[in-house]
Amino acid sequence: MRYETLRWDGRTLHILDQRKLPDAVEYFQARTYKDAVFAIADMVVRGAPAIGAAAAYGVCLAALEYAGLPKTEFLARLRAAGEALAASRPTAVNLRWAVQRMEKVIHGQESAEVGDIVSALLEEAGAIAREDVETNKAMARHGNTLVPQGASILTHCNTGALATVGWGTALGVIREAHYSGKNIHVYANETRPRLQGANLTAFELVEEGIPATLIVDSAAATLIRDGKVDLILVGADRIAANGDTANKIGTYMLSELAARFRVPFYVVAPVSTIDFSIPDGRHIVIEERAPEELTHIRRVRVAPPGIAVYNPAFDVTPHENITAIITEKGVLRPPYAESLLQVRD
Amino acid sequence: MRYETLRWDGRTLHILDQRKLPDAVEYFQARTYKDAVFAIADMVVRGAPAIGAAAAYGVCLAALEYAGLPKTEFLARLRAAGEALAASRPTAVNLRWAVQRMEKVIHGQESAEVGDIVSALLEEAGAIAREDVETNKAMARHGNTLVPQGASILTHCNTGALATVGWGTALGVIREAHYSGKNIHVYANETRPRLQGANLTAFELVEEGIPATLIVDSAAATLIRDGKVDLILVGADRIAANGDTANKIGTYMLSELAARFRVPFYVVAPVSTIDFSIPDGRHIVIEERAPEELTHIRRVRVAPPGIAVYNPAFDVTPHENITAIITEKGVLRPPYAESLLQVRD
Repeated sequence: MRYETLRWDGRTLHILDQRKLPDAVEYFQARTYKDAVFAIADMVVRGAPAIGAAAAYGVCLAALEYAGLPKTEFLARLRAAGEALAASRPTAVNLRWAVQRMEKVIHGQESAEVGDIVSALLEEAGAIAREDVETNKAMARHGNTLVPQGASILTHCNTGALATVGWGTALGVIREAHYSGKNIHVYANETRPRLQGANLTAFELVEEGIPATLIVDSAAATLIRDGKVDLILVGADRIAANGDTANKIGTYMLSELAARFRVPFYVVAPVSTIDFSIPDGRHIVIEERAPEELTHIRRVRVAPPGIAVYNPAFDVTPHENITAIITEKGVLRPPYAESLLQVRD
Repeated sequence: MRYETLRWDGRTLHILDQRKLPDAVEYFQARTYKDAVFAIADMVVRGAPAIGAAAAYGVCLAALEYAGLPKTEFLARLRAAGEALAASRPTAVNLRWAVQRMEKVIHGQESAEVGDIVSALLEEAGAIAREDVETNKAMARHGNTLVPQGASILTHCNTGALATVGWGTALGVIREAHYSGKNIHVYANETRPRLQGANLTAFELVEEGIPATLIVDSAAATLIRDGKVDLILVGADRIAANGDTANKIGTYMLSELAARFRVPFYVVAPVSTIDFSIPDGRHIVIEERAPEELTHIRRVRVAPPGIAVYNPAFDVTPHENITAIITEKGVLRPPYAESLLQVRD
């Protein structure tokens, strides 16, 4: 990709504004941690790994903002900023994981000067961002072993460079398969309501020159039935200890069709997405977003005033429907309650 | 409903412009049969029964346009108009059925004066429109016997007054259930790509005061799994002799989820929708519509230039997934190869 999802210049976090793609390539400048909270909540940046890195830099922004305060107050402000960042979206576990990594640095530096704490935080955010790209490339290599020559691959939402610091999770596997010369073809679900498939995945696929076809989400069913899909690759926002996976609304629907027609269904996600604190998907909080995501499209009203809306951002795919979970530490197979534990940090 | 889908004033067909709902309630005036062809092709009017009636009036418009010509030429022009109208959309069988009814009138009047043929055609179009409302009300009564008190009903696309001359097919059953005091609740799929659920079904439900919630199509899967849907009601564009049913893209996806979780899945359609000339769904031609339905929304680009699009307007639900087919002649049960024959005209 010619564009960076996140760029840190030492003072400001430049965020590729995904609300404006594919029309315009513009950067949102987060200069305060509140800008970062806004950018995550309003989906200037989205995708679990990208959100995690943005939140880590959000803690850095808070540290720079409050570096002039006495240390006790500095630490209190940092804690509040961390809490606000961790709460900016409820479902993605990487967000909490990234903020916790930053908090661990603070705890490890409690006897240090404020300036040293700031430096340590900047270093840690940089490490989170760098590691994300490395993690994605490792997942892509593992995932590519599962992609046959000439495969037709269905994907949902955006899990690409735009959803991460770079390269991508599920779309990272697709990139790897393409660049390894496998002559793949991609079906991209447009992914209502926010159209990340049309806005973002299609944008990345065209940028990379990967042959791809855009469809409405509900058209996937017929393609799967008719044998036009060889495998399905999706990302994850949170994986429970038994493998149940929260991902973009529509993922569960695909998994049922895949199970029915024995099409391999792979979840591609870093180990940081696994939430060992919850036994299964019933414990995953599903974010409900604003009704306007359905009643309006780009500010134009498409549904009448007075209609109620139910707008869950995610659904939960049961582990039974998942053929394998592809992590940076390798391809995990059922039973996930055991295989996930083997990659626990 | 306060609005009429089609209104014939003896000279002009006034068509409620469904491209503009719910923003604006405007009528498109078809003064020539070519206006009627345009209105059907561009989906000013849509829904299989409404298209049939509009095409019948389209033949009347041609008859009025060419009534001044010598009879041989008049008949030739009428035949050409009938062919253009029948071809204005490929999947809906009512369209062809309605045009054939009009052609039968022409054949029955071949020895008559041009003026008498015109009168007979006007009468037949009026009969098609009147009968459509009667047919819908009969379907609604039969269908309502299958709706439990307090039911939660999922529907797809628009099958209401706007899809017909009045009352509706699947949404007609919902109207009947509501007015019979059953305290129902409706989940309406927004129905990508054209958003007939958001634009039209939600509009009708709000107009009628029927409690309803709009969802993205792919969210239906979780609702069905979680037991939040008691039955599914959909329309049909064409039903093959074995019961396989072509309907709006997304219908098949719902039918698989319904079969998996044993939720009753009902098709509501007049007998005129049944195409006894084709043995099964493999023989149904599926209309592919313009890529712009996905790449643009209300003329705003949402997908990048260069992305390929696959945009089938319909999919085919296999008869095995259909619990019953509700017609004006009663509720038909499997095996449909037999029960459909019993209602053949």
